[in-house]
Amino acid sequence: MISVGEARERILALLAPTGAEIVPLAAAAGRVLAEPVVARLTQPPHDVSAMDGFALRAADGVAGMRLRVIGAAPAGHPFAGTVGPGEAVRLFTGSVVPAGADAIVIQEDTEHDDASVTLREAARPGRHIRRAGQDFAAGETLLAAGRVLGARDIGLAAAANHPWLAVRRRPVVAVLATGDEIAMPGEPIPPGGIVSSNSHALAAYIRAAGGEAVILPVAPDDRAAIGAAAAAAARADLLVTTGGASVGAHDLVQAGLAERGLDVDFWKIAMRPGKPLMAGMLGGVPVLGLPGNPVSALVCAVLFLGPAIARLTGRPDEAPPTEPARCTVALAANDHRADHLRATLARDEAGGWRVTPFPVQDSAMLSRLAQADALLLRAPDAPAEPEGAMVRVIRLDSCGM
Amino acid sequence: MISVGEARERILALLAPTGAEIVPLAAAAGRVLAEPVVARLTQPPHDVSAMDGFALRAADGVAGMRLRVIGAAPAGHPFAGTVGPGEAVRLFTGSVVPAGADAIVIQEDTEHDDASVTLREAARPGRHIRRAGQDFAAGETLLAAGRVLGARDIGLAAAANHPWLAVRRRPVVAVLATGDEIAMPGEPIPPGGIVSSNSHALAAYIRAAGGEAVILPVAPDDRAAIGAAAAAAARADLLVTTGGASVGAHDLVQAGLAERGLDVDFWKIAMRPGKPLMAGMLGGVPVLGLPGNPVSALVCAVLFLGPAIARLTGRPDEAPPTEPARCTVALAANDHRADHLRATLARDEAGGWRVTPFPVQDSAMLSRLAQADALLLRAPDAPAEPEGAMVRVIRLDSCGM
Repeated sequence: MISVGEARERILALLAPTGAEIVPLAAAAGRVLAEPVVARLTQPPHDVSAMDGFALRAADGVAGMRLRVIGAAPAGHPFAGTVGPGEAVRLFTGSVVPAGADAIVIQEDTEHDDASVTLREAARPGRHIRRAGQDFAAGETLLAAGRVLGARDIGLAAAANHPWLAVRRRPVVAVLATGDEIAMPGEPIPPGGIVSSNSHALAAYIRAAGGEAVILPVAPDDRAAIGAAAAAAARADLLVTTGGASVGAHDLVQAGLAERGLDVDFWKIAMRPGKPLMAGMLGGVPVLGLPGNPVSALVCAVLFLGPAIARLTGRPDEAPPTEPARCTVALAANDHRADHLRATLARDEAGGWRVTPFPVQDSAMLSRLAQADALLLRAPDAPAEPEGAMVRVIRLDSCGM
Repeated sequence: MISVGEARERILALLAPTGAEIVPLAAAAGRVLAEPVVARLTQPPHDVSAMDGFALRAADGVAGMRLRVIGAAPAGHPFAGTVGPGEAVRLFTGSVVPAGADAIVIQEDTEHDDASVTLREAARPGRHIRRAGQDFAAGETLLAAGRVLGARDIGLAAAANHPWLAVRRRPVVAVLATGDEIAMPGEPIPPGGIVSSNSHALAAYIRAAGGEAVILPVAPDDRAAIGAAAAAAARADLLVTTGGASVGAHDLVQAGLAERGLDVDFWKIAMRPGKPLMAGMLGGVPVLGLPGNPVSALVCAVLFLGPAIARLTGRPDEAPPTEPARCTVALAANDHRADHLRATLARDEAGGWRVTPFPVQDSAMLSRLAQADALLLRAPDAPAEPEGAMVRVIRLDSCGM
């Protein structure tokens, strides 16, 4: 058996980031920048006023001074002339500071009419002026490649005059569920059958992680049918199978894909839930075979598929982030398998987390997973811990799961 | 001036959750459930095997016992007969436990061929059997209304046989930027003009928060044009304006909307950045007027627009979550306005946050906001703090900003 960390490294080694595509600025939020955003202009383009007020020469900026108002410069309508001695120009937030002026007095510090303004306070040179380029200068790199674009990045790219951005293409991730017993929701259920849940949960997870999910039709328990279904994913960036990665006679995925040339790496991972995992290459398409039990499949998705999609989209592909939490119950010594206990979280008085694992941890209990807030991590061979011990948890709500 | 908290309460009081709509299961991830999901079937539907092995009568489950294999029951193909004394049926993970059998021996604990199986270990009654309804029973409420649907919830709704879900309609949020100086990215820029950034950043933020953003054409600085532009939002769930909420002669939004019947509530909020904020009702449409400076607009979006969209979608609409952090610099005493310092975060050795505010905090510096990881909160009239003091921060990356 190999460790969770080694399995993740071996999966990531099969994957490379997708290429770039150009998308409209309005469609780029949440995407991963493929090329840096370089400012196409200087912002602000000129010295501008930070307040509503009057532009004047600093030499005239004396309390009690009365100046002649020779014009106004609303934002977008710069004053064409020059401010001379004894003169002032009305400005607003964002107005270009006119030639000749090097000080601003804010309107609250004046008495004014259309023709003249009297200063109640002295004006300090440069005060209330935003200098050209204070935010950024043309040619400056504003956003680095690899950044996941948030709303403020979209605003910044807009301000830097980019109507289009180069982002990583969303990786296409095909999902193949297998099994004679599987029906799609709302469709007739065969005798002894169940409704497919893994494909839908995995597709939602793939989309939340930035991938494009393609749910392939459920393949029956038949080698040739499984092989043909997998062949439909020949142009995917990743093929994810669910079920059939174990060792039973009806675990045919590996066999079906082998007939199509799967270069297979089959592992038992020292973890719970989710021991069996398959990885390999099928004619140039990386394949990740997840367990069939829903909880195992989704825990493995958090541990392996999330980082895989991160790698494909050019994001950091580390293990899912963990947080400290105080365990409200005593924990038995762990065996040699890393455990991922489904657990609830609550805030303690100091703002930290208290974590409580569910007493029953069956890997088929999807309702329990939906009630969980976190996975409580138990390292291989971890000793018994008393109530109140500090542990690490992976929060489920923060990763789209 | 009113407080940030009071302003938020007054904005939320204008808003009510949208109605429900039916969407396909595959489109429901990230949406807010409008009606509870009730199980339409029992899962598992029968007692099933948790392992690959053999079903037998517990009375026969003695080490060394040799049993006749009378059939097999692959998942999806239940065994039609009954297991009698001295008999066994081959099972796989998920197979229905056949009538007559009340114990399972796993295949690793047997020697077997097609006709017979010899037990190397005793079988315990009930062991390795997942009981009908272990995960959930028909009629059980699995997901409550108001839940934001994650991948595991989609899986659970699928398993409970729901091809469609009732979710809150995405609220339509119209965004109106005003100003003669504003150009769209890539379009000709007027003299002294700048490229529109607020609309695009706000639209991205609205979408990340679960709303449907409609960017209205930029309105020129003209009362009638602003009124007409706002009228185009007559069927929106919320109209957000940016700019023009201050007191200058060219701040025309309020005037333009007043001509159309805006019932206005105009506030100065005791906060920085972003003092002026407008709220009101325009012919049944709630209106939120954000400041024009990009950083002010986006900080106000985090504080007010995020909770507003949460209210509209039926999610909890509290203030954005804060986390503790240790400040790496001394902080001066604050004035009477709540401050939101743009700051970077780093992890300390113990896994906590260290926060460092930028020395310059100009509200027009969008590049600085993009570099920030968090807003460092300073309460009104907060005293000076030495280096190393604990403060609260709002993380920007966790809210789509």
